[in-house]
Amino acid sequence: MSNLNKPKSNNFFKRGNNNSITDVNGVSVGHYTLDNDDCKTGITSIVPHSDNIFKKKLIAASHVINGFGKSVGLVQIDELGTIETPILLTNTFGVGTCLNALTKKMLEDNPDIGDTTGTVNSIVAECNDGVLNNIRKMSITEENVIEALEDASLDFKQGSIGAGSGMVCFGLKGGIGSSSRLVNLYNKDYTVGMLVLSNFGSMENLTMYGNRIGHDINEKLHLSYSEPDKGSIIIVLATDIPLSARQLKRVLKRTQSGIARTGGYAGNGSGEIAIGFSTANLITHYPSETTIKLEIVHDDLLDSVFSAVVEATEEAIINSLLFSSTTIGRNNTIIHSLNGFID
Amino acid sequence: MSNLNKPKSNNFFKRGNNNSITDVNGVSVGHYTLDNDDCKTGITSIVPHSDNIFKKKLIAASHVINGFGKSVGLVQIDELGTIETPILLTNTFGVGTCLNALTKKMLEDNPDIGDTTGTVNSIVAECNDGVLNNIRKMSITEENVIEALEDASLDFKQGSIGAGSGMVCFGLKGGIGSSSRLVNLYNKDYTVGMLVLSNFGSMENLTMYGNRIGHDINEKLHLSYSEPDKGSIIIVLATDIPLSARQLKRVLKRTQSGIARTGGYAGNGSGEIAIGFSTANLITHYPSETTIKLEIVHDDLLDSVFSAVVEATEEAIINSLLFSSTTIGRNNTIIHSLNGFID
Amino acid sequence: MSNLNKPKSNNFFKRGNNNSITDVNGVSVGHYTLDNDDCKTGITSIVPHSDNIFKKKLIAASHVINGFGKSVGLVQIDELGTIETPILLTNTFGVGTCLNALTKKMLEDNPDIGDTTGTVNSIVAECNDGVLNNIRKMSITEENVIEALEDASLDFKQGSIGAGSGMVCFGLKGGIGSSSRLVNLYNKDYTVGMLVLSNFGSMENLTMYGNRIGHDINEKLHLSYSEPDKGSIIIVLATDIPLSARQLKRVLKRTQSGIARTGGYAGNGSGEIAIGFSTANLITHYPSETTIKLEIVHDDLLDSVFSAVVEATEEAIINSLLFSSTTIGRNNTIIHSLNGFID
Amino acid sequence: MSNLNKPKSNNFFKRGNNNSITDVNGVSVGHYTLDNDDCKTGITSIVPHSDNIFKKKLIAASHVINGFGKSVGLVQIDELGTIETPILLTNTFGVGTCLNALTKKMLEDNPDIGDTTGTVNSIVAECNDGVLNNIRKMSITEENVIEALEDASLDFKQGSIGAGSGMVCFGLKGGIGSSSRLVNLYNKDYTVGMLVLSNFGSMENLTMYGNRIGHDINEKLHLSYSEPDKGSIIIVLATDIPLSARQLKRVLKRTQSGIARTGGYAGNGSGEIAIGFSTANLITHYPSETTIKLEIVHDDLLDSVFSAVVEATEEAIINSLLFSSTTIGRNNTIIHSLNGFID
Repeated sequence: MSNLNKPKSNNFFKRGNNNSITDVNGVSVGHYTLDNDDCKTGITSIVPHSDNIFKKKLIAASHVINGFGKSVGLVQIDELGTIETPILLTNTFGVGTCLNALTKKMLEDNPDIGDTTGTVNSIVAECNDGVLNNIRKMSITEENVIEALEDASLDFKQGSIGAGSGMVCFGLKGGIGSSSRLVNLYNKDYTVGMLVLSNFGSMENLTMYGNRIGHDINEKLHLSYSEPDKGSIIIVLATDIPLSARQLKRVLKRTQSGIARTGGYAGNGSGEIAIGFSTANLITHYPSETTIKLEIVHDDLLDSVFSAVVEATEEAIINSLLFSSTTIGRNNTIIHSLNGFID
Repeated sequence: MSNLNKPKSNNFFKRGNNNSITDVNGVSVGHYTLDNDDCKTGITSIVPHSDNIFKKKLIAASHVINGFGKSVGLVQIDELGTIETPILLTNTFGVGTCLNALTKKMLEDNPDIGDTTGTVNSIVAECNDGVLNNIRKMSITEENVIEALEDASLDFKQGSIGAGSGMVCFGLKGGIGSSSRLVNLYNKDYTVGMLVLSNFGSMENLTMYGNRIGHDINEKLHLSYSEPDKGSIIIVLATDIPLSARQLKRVLKRTQSGIARTGGYAGNGSGEIAIGFSTANLITHYPSETTIKLEIVHDDLLDSVFSAVVEATEEAIINSLLFSSTTIGRNNTIIHSLNGFID
Repeated sequence: MSNLNKPKSNNFFKRGNNNSITDVNGVSVGHYTLDNDDCKTGITSIVPHSDNIFKKKLIAASHVINGFGKSVGLVQIDELGTIETPILLTNTFGVGTCLNALTKKMLEDNPDIGDTTGTVNSIVAECNDGVLNNIRKMSITEENVIEALEDASLDFKQGSIGAGSGMVCFGLKGGIGSSSRLVNLYNKDYTVGMLVLSNFGSMENLTMYGNRIGHDINEKLHLSYSEPDKGSIIIVLATDIPLSARQLKRVLKRTQSGIARTGGYAGNGSGEIAIGFSTANLITHYPSETTIKLEIVHDDLLDSVFSAVVEATEEAIINSLLFSSTTIGRNNTIIHSLNGFID
Repeated sequence: MSNLNKPKSNNFFKRGNNNSITDVNGVSVGHYTLDNDDCKTGITSIVPHSDNIFKKKLIAASHVINGFGKSVGLVQIDELGTIETPILLTNTFGVGTCLNALTKKMLEDNPDIGDTTGTVNSIVAECNDGVLNNIRKMSITEENVIEALEDASLDFKQGSIGAGSGMVCFGLKGGIGSSSRLVNLYNKDYTVGMLVLSNFGSMENLTMYGNRIGHDINEKLHLSYSEPDKGSIIIVLATDIPLSARQLKRVLKRTQSGIARTGGYAGNGSGEIAIGFSTANLITHYPSETTIKLEIVHDDLLDSVFSAVVEATEEAIINSLLFSSTTIGRNNTIIHSLNGFID
């Protein structure tokens, strides 16, 4: 069995320094990984900025490509166009515990929440890692969540780690992937950062920079069939481009085109959800003046942003595969790494 | 038959100078009325500002309460959050002609449209005036549309005029109604202006400032039945409050509560659509800098805006009834004015 | 201080036998109430049918009037048009624990979930009861949730009980209210059942069957001001009318009109969410044939359904006030019952 | 200059007999082409069945990928989940005239519309063909529209014809393209038919079955730059699979993935809209019984439908390029056919 030549990307846009979502100034990412017995799961945290985010909210949006998913917090993002907590990723049955732990953390940091001011909208998104992880055990604890939050840094690992520990993508080992692109608008460079939790796709369809390599891998593995496109993908987009919530939603819609480039088509059971935020404008919790002064870009400038997002989504997914390692999970299920098949 | 006492509104908010949508600085309204034989119809134009609106767009939103309607232009309003033409109201089958005439007017005023720049998103909304008007005749002409646009002024008539000529509301003569409210945000007065084209409701349900007077009128008229809630209502909201498109959509949603106060419940056949714009920020067609500087209010200040909108919607509908006069239309159908029943 | 005369409803539609959501065949409701020290909160469960609901799903929809809320499960309801668990109501910070407990219950009842089939979409909705309840204590436990589920019966209490324990509505004691209406379609009687968790409105606006009684109560209490419309309302609609998910969404939109009749206008901070299901068609989890045979009503018949829903929503809210009793909560805050003001 | 090798599709699904939308039983397509002086435009009609469609409506949905467009009729499709007229495609400024002509045709065929029953929701979608066509002339007439409707047949031409006459796709000549796929659900074959009006994309991105050929063509043409992704695409999907409106919307969302495969990313100015209908269930205009009996497929079976739709969308776009011929339009602009570049 000889390996495939590793297809190369021919991207139009320059990458950021680390080709990572943390190239967007202020953003950090942390993990907690649980790997024992038949539990292969975890939590990944995306912290939008290091200050008090409840008091200094960011403009945000979400976009549901396929709503076969159990994320929490999207309704209020859509209504108010802001996020006020970090974003947590985990397995489907870890959402309740992540919600509880994140809410407690927010209460601890903000004595006014639920006392002299309103409540807080914690954001948790999920994929079903049940192929490798005994998801029925609901093994995530609130302490694990705090660890994932405290682990947040600029330099984080990708692949089979954190929430990505048990994820399967195109029949191969998926998980956390990231990328970034520089977008030049009127002679000023901005950054688009992307992080995915990949857990979707059927092997037959896997396409790497235009090459449908999944078919060949399928044959190498002597698989007689290809699983349907199940599972889900969560996409988190961060940017310093000054975008309104409406514009962020437009931008997030283009992630579907990035997924499509890798061979995904949003199968019935594949919950596909994108959440995005811009670090360019802060919305304070307590209004101090009648009006807020915002800067946003003209919609005519969004073309290159859209295009960069498609490219960054594609690469983040590919990276989630390239950084993952072969994993044996519950029922001795073995899921291979893409790395074994390409050079 | 003695008349009902005219119920009084107990509004919280002060009205603007003319209790009209034109209390919002820059907004003007015009009509063209067609009244011959069995044709009782027309066109009403709302001109958001007197400058070139294609070049200086306004932030806008639409909200569909009940989509049993044939308006044009809403898809792009939702996507881009702006309007770039006046808004026309007419009967259902007048939409195509209004669209053609308005587009031609925009082409005339802007030689670049369709040549060196893109196209233009003309906005036309409609109600079915088929009870009084022979709508099948499609009697509106492009010249009529231009007359309605050129008629735009600060001081316009309400009731059975323009697009309101043949409209029926709660089984009584409806049509054009307007109102305005002053909203004080952090010691600064802003104006919310409202214009409705009322053509909905069943008489039994008509409620005037808390009094279900429709039931009594129904009995006076010895009607043995009450028509279902059919027809439609178009609501146009103008304001100088600096709102984003997202916020405008939130504000427009509250018009349903204003309709409900008058006894409407958005019957299956009643297309109910609201369009709103803010005059506070101009979005130029051609971007000149990377970013646009906007001022918007904090969402926490929207409470009084929401409340004022409910009140203004209610009163605009009542005004559409009070300003209308008894009309005999096609098939000698007579539709009474509310004025004959209250003192 | 003499009391107001109790305003009477003049409803068009007959009520069901118990004027309750459980008039819809199969539906049951349970409570768990927590009342100690500064904790006044609880859980209310709505069980759509007594069989295995994961295996026999019901057609469902949700509608967000104001998305300032933290409900879970709505994204998948919208995508798939079904519910597959009971619906839980609780306080805002009880959602995570309800989600965990409900998911565990579903896992227990269905060994295939998360093993040989996919995951499960648990539904939890919430209001902020922080005026009376020390919500920061997050006092709800998973055992409490199970008690609320096991308590489900046809004959349940309304008012200050279960999730309604600490809720405040129009500045008075709110909570759980229910109602039902019979709708006759082509000579066949169907039932619309409604249950609300009321926690919204400012006293000044409270309107009871057309009478703005809130203003008078406000004066009796010598309150110098009226709180803004904060808090939220959750509406659960059950019906045996055969409706598609699209039609259910249309029906749910009319609940806003019912809220408006009581004086609510969906204030900025008032998360207002409606969830509805029809018991008429079962959707099995495992497909056994290519096609599912459904019966749905023609949209032309929805007029009376819409109208009945407005009426039932209004009455369920009023009932939540009438069944509630004066409550002293955290910080010795006293919230009066409406009953003290009307005869 | 040597030509590229024509890339081959490696599709999973069998094509229908004619690889055309008319492979769906009952569907026919017609054109009217206007080609004189600087006018290169036209109309394409899609007739869903040959019977009276107003009286026998079809279940339908629409999906807006990018709402920078001026289609009419979508609001009501979304609300009621049906179509009741043929679908017309034309240039952006031809919409008003198509709307008028189609409405008149519907009035002629149905004397009850606007008299004893309500109005009719005519559907017209558009792209901006202003690169080749002098769109400001608004040259489409109502007679032209009737010709396009009367031309409807099973065997229609693709490419630079009808509404496709002046369209430009990836900098090459685009227009009308079609395709079909057979989908086997539980041992029964169904057909998915697709028709596109292609007018989007920048040459640099054109990808044909995985091969980014646009880059090479760009170099052959010695173009120093690549136009941004402007213009639009309209997608019409027909199928005999029994789908609900909700399911059709899910299916339509996957067309974005098909567009992405060809290199499109829905640029800011590219209005991308999909409309779909199923011929499997008829909804009569006048209800005759309380309930309508429907058959729909289980959502679990949609996976192969989604996958087939992606494939069919991709091929319909490629076909629109392959069937088009080099065209010289206004200002002597020459737009090449893809055929000149591949063998």
